[in-house]
Amino acid sequence: MDRQILAYFELHPNEYISGEQLSEKLGCSRTAVWKHISALRDQGYSFEAVPRRGYRLTGVPDRYDLAELLSKLHTTTMGRTIKLFDSVESTQTVAHKFASQGAAEGTLVLAEQQTAGRGRMGRSWHSPKGKGVWMSLILRPLVPLQFTPQLTLLVAVALCRAIRQIEQVPVAIKWPNDLLIEGKKVSGILLESSAEDERLKYVIAGIGISVNLRAEDYTGELLEKATSLRITSGAEWNRSELIRTFLEQFEQLYTLYHEEGFEPIRVAWEALTISLGRPLLARTTKGNVEGVAESIDEMGALLVRQSDGTLTKLYSAEI
Amino acid sequence: MDRQILAYFELHPNEYISGEQLSEKLGCSRTAVWKHISALRDQGYSFEAVPRRGYRLTGVPDRYDLAELLSKLHTTTMGRTIKLFDSVESTQTVAHKFASQGAAEGTLVLAEQQTAGRGRMGRSWHSPKGKGVWMSLILRPLVPLQFTPQLTLLVAVALCRAIRQIEQVPVAIKWPNDLLIEGKKVSGILLESSAEDERLKYVIAGIGISVNLRAEDYTGELLEKATSLRITSGAEWNRSELIRTFLEQFEQLYTLYHEEGFEPIRVAWEALTISLGRPLLARTTKGNVEGVAESIDEMGALLVRQSDGTLTKLYSAEI
Repeated sequence: MDRQILAYFELHPNEYISGEQLSEKLGCSRTAVWKHISALRDQGYSFEAVPRRGYRLTGVPDRYDLAELLSKLHTTTMGRTIKLFDSVESTQTVAHKFASQGAAEGTLVLAEQQTAGRGRMGRSWHSPKGKGVWMSLILRPLVPLQFTPQLTLLVAVALCRAIRQIEQVPVAIKWPNDLLIEGKKVSGILLESSAEDERLKYVIAGIGISVNLRAEDYTGELLEKATSLRITSGAEWNRSELIRTFLEQFEQLYTLYHEEGFEPIRVAWEALTISLGRPLLARTTKGNVEGVAESIDEMGALLVRQSDGTLTKLYSAEI
Repeated sequence: MDRQILAYFELHPNEYISGEQLSEKLGCSRTAVWKHISALRDQGYSFEAVPRRGYRLTGVPDRYDLAELLSKLHTTTMGRTIKLFDSVESTQTVAHKFASQGAAEGTLVLAEQQTAGRGRMGRSWHSPKGKGVWMSLILRPLVPLQFTPQLTLLVAVALCRAIRQIEQVPVAIKWPNDLLIEGKKVSGILLESSAEDERLKYVIAGIGISVNLRAEDYTGELLEKATSLRITSGAEWNRSELIRTFLEQFEQLYTLYHEEGFEPIRVAWEALTISLGRPLLARTTKGNVEGVAESIDEMGALLVRQSDGTLTKLYSAEI
């Protein structure tokens, strides 16, 4: 039925087609039509819906072209192997499997769609087909496990720089690892790590970027808290270019990090963040901390000056 | 055939039986007899072998009695659930499975035998049936991942104290987490952790203790580097008592750690170690460090004073 609806729209390009018309042509109820349109949206098709005129097909799904993506990629390690999937539950889960089977550093797991994308703290992450970048990068950093928070910040810097390199949108980092545009979330980063004593076995950097989602792709009140690159800039973004730019930025910073340590990353992070110099309330496992974030320390912890003058180190918190 | 050999020894308690005698009675070669004796040793039987006299059965396998173990255990959380196996590849692997399926803190995976026991750095760990304590404890500590090295030290302190509480053997800690008696390894600890950003999802504390192994259970040159509690003290140890004492010591220290932080653990560790105040050579991923270990810092790193006076922090190394 989805295919029949699509064929009908393709026969009538740029036309508005009413739900009534579709239900007659296809011999089903208007509720069924609405359900099929929703299903097509989940598959990456875009429809404009105008009251009393009907639906208009405005976009077909964007698909990765792996050969094109790899041919233009200027990196030595990062993304040299890409495992592309049409649909997975979560790229993190797939990447864990590859990593525990010995996949090389830089292996990228990429999916057009995630059916059970994961965010921090077990939250779900909305990952509709073809509209965003949903990926997980396998790393095998030669640093002890205490340094993983530095890697979280490093990924955020690379991603923020990559977006800005493509177009000057006002994207910034919220500690530790969300990217926001004008206060709304556009990207989330989730680092999962596996260690044996102090030795990191591997780290999976999970990255979700809301690239070409439109306002109608967000349900309920989500639009108040979330946005996409397309909504911000008013135009479609090339997802492959975004992935390439990120991998190149990341490789450069990751090499710098292994050669010169965290200091240059720390400086770059502080230049891109909106989390410093403002009052904040952080929920930690040991209670709330209220104060003003002053800087991050050499391990990647946030230093918060409380009203009584004491300086508290935050390793992990909800802000 | 193993059963027939055992029956023959049981018919002649405390007697020496020659390989020749056995090979005649059982109608097999003397090489075959030797192989069966070896197989029985792997199953936990002990034989004394005296040249020109033959073999004498000196011990039958010790078996855990789960009801007895649990009934005498005075803890609130640690070991309240025990998953006992006759034989597993590795208790660590089994514990990872339970932990990722949501097993509660304190769940203990215990096995009579490991067929592929794991040590640090992918090394194997000799775990013959019934002769040692091979176990993995699932923890869900409410501390950020940077603090896991502290947990490694905490486990070592609890284990060292438990052994000394049962009998005054000169057991001590070699940084970060081996237990030695007179320079020979008697126990190894391996902490594996899984984290999401700075949040620890779970930690598996793997513990191997060579309890009732005899000299003949060690092959090749292993006896130069390894020992057992039995070899040291000259008598069999009760494995269940050792597990209980460890769990009780551990729970006490773990509670203290959550309430008062690392400082009391650090002090206790320093009192039990042989790694401070001596010259050492450490191999790290960034090259060798030579010097004298002075102390451990508030994060659990080893502070080494090099000959040029500089102080180096070691997070992870081979000593």
